[in-house]
Amino acid sequence: MKTLTKELWIETPTRRAIVSIHTDVEALVAQSGIAEGLVLVNAMHITASVFINDNESGLHADYERWLEGLVPFNPGSDPATGGYLHNRTGEDNADAHHKRQIMGREVVVAITGGKLHLGPWEHIFYYEFDGRRRKRILVKIIGE
Amino acid sequence: MKTLTKELWIETPTRRAIVSIHTDVEALVAQSGIAEGLVLVNAMHITASVFINDNESGLHADYERWLEGLVPFNPGSDPATGGYLHNRTGEDNADAHHKRQIMGREVVVAITGGKLHLGPWEHIFYYEFDGRRRKRILVKIIGE
Amino acid sequence: MKTLTKELWIETPTRRAIVSIHTDVEALVAQSGIAEGLVLVNAMHITASVFINDNESGLHADYERWLEGLVPFNPGSDPATGGYLHNRTGEDNADAHHKRQIMGREVVVAITGGKLHLGPWEHIFYYEFDGRRRKRILVKIIGE
Repeated sequence: MKTLTKELWIETPTRRAIVSIHTDVEALVAQSGIAEGLVLVNAMHITASVFINDNESGLHADYERWLEGLVPFNPGSDPATGGYLHNRTGEDNADAHHKRQIMGREVVVAITGGKLHLGPWEHIFYYEFDGRRRKRILVKIIGE
Repeated sequence: MKTLTKELWIETPTRRAIVSIHTDVEALVAQSGIAEGLVLVNAMHITASVFINDNESGLHADYERWLEGLVPFNPGSDPATGGYLHNRTGEDNADAHHKRQIMGREVVVAITGGKLHLGPWEHIFYYEFDGRRRKRILVKIIGE
Repeated sequence: MKTLTKELWIETPTRRAIVSIHTDVEALVAQSGIAEGLVLVNAMHITASVFINDNESGLHADYERWLEGLVPFNPGSDPATGGYLHNRTGEDNADAHHKRQIMGREVVVAITGGKLHLGPWEHIFYYEFDGRRRKRILVKIIGE
């Protein structure tokens, strides 16, 4: 069994952002020399997601609006006015901890014949819900 | 390490459908000859899900109604009237790209003693959100 | 390749509860002797989740309120009054089957250097949506 482990660092200039990490993951799979196996890609922070969907900016704007409707940003800590108890810790990012549950922490992707085994439109993204600071994504590849 | 890789093809006659793929995955695990390992089962299309839940038609109808409430089908592309920017690409399936995020892209299931290691009611399903065309599901098994 | 398989039993005294299983998973990784690999942790029941997020009680209370808003508990079986068709089976836990889809069935975590490879605040939890009876969580570790 062979493995490759790599932490990718990312810092988005905005609070929220969707960033393609597709070619980074592709390059690591090639570098691993693994022909058959699995790659795990996960956010190492609990206010961010890794997900697979369409590389289309209109859809990404739709996600933004939709997630904001399901769990609005509110820096307050009083649920009666839309705030979150979590923000009593001094944070203002409770919404981010919720949004990341909708979009997911991780993806697991097959490697076949030395390449990511994906459908025609599958594209790997990082979704930042509380950015403007350095955060990490983990890529772990196992196989042979 | 041994691996087995198989793409399952599916075409649902309706736009939306929940289809059991449980026995297909079971048969592939048996065919693989792998006693201890993991199986990844994922939709290869970004308007579909693979998930594990109850094999009960009432629940499936509940999911349909619930998901439609969270992110309604709307072929329009004007958010002011409930449409989606994604539909400006000529598609009408933006809702499907959202619904799949709720239900998930993939499941990873343990293999123990040559069989799927599942709880008593766990059942593997494919959830089609934009059907009426041929689509694929990937099954990737690794282990020994 | 080495593997370790363990079912953890849990019984929460309340219908809903968030329970840390972090140190249990850590101990199993240490026990496995696996230095490089993956660990799958999944609920074996379809009215429960395993997820990774913050070990902060305010956030957990926020999750409770939020999930209840997205898919309220209702023991009835008439959708016109907020019930669920699933409850016609004699169950009253249809909401639990929905909540678990939001929070997820499983997590897959990397093992590097013999330890869980996690970010600074990642913490592994079990989320019970229909407790007061014995249920199981599966931990499956593969690697070398």
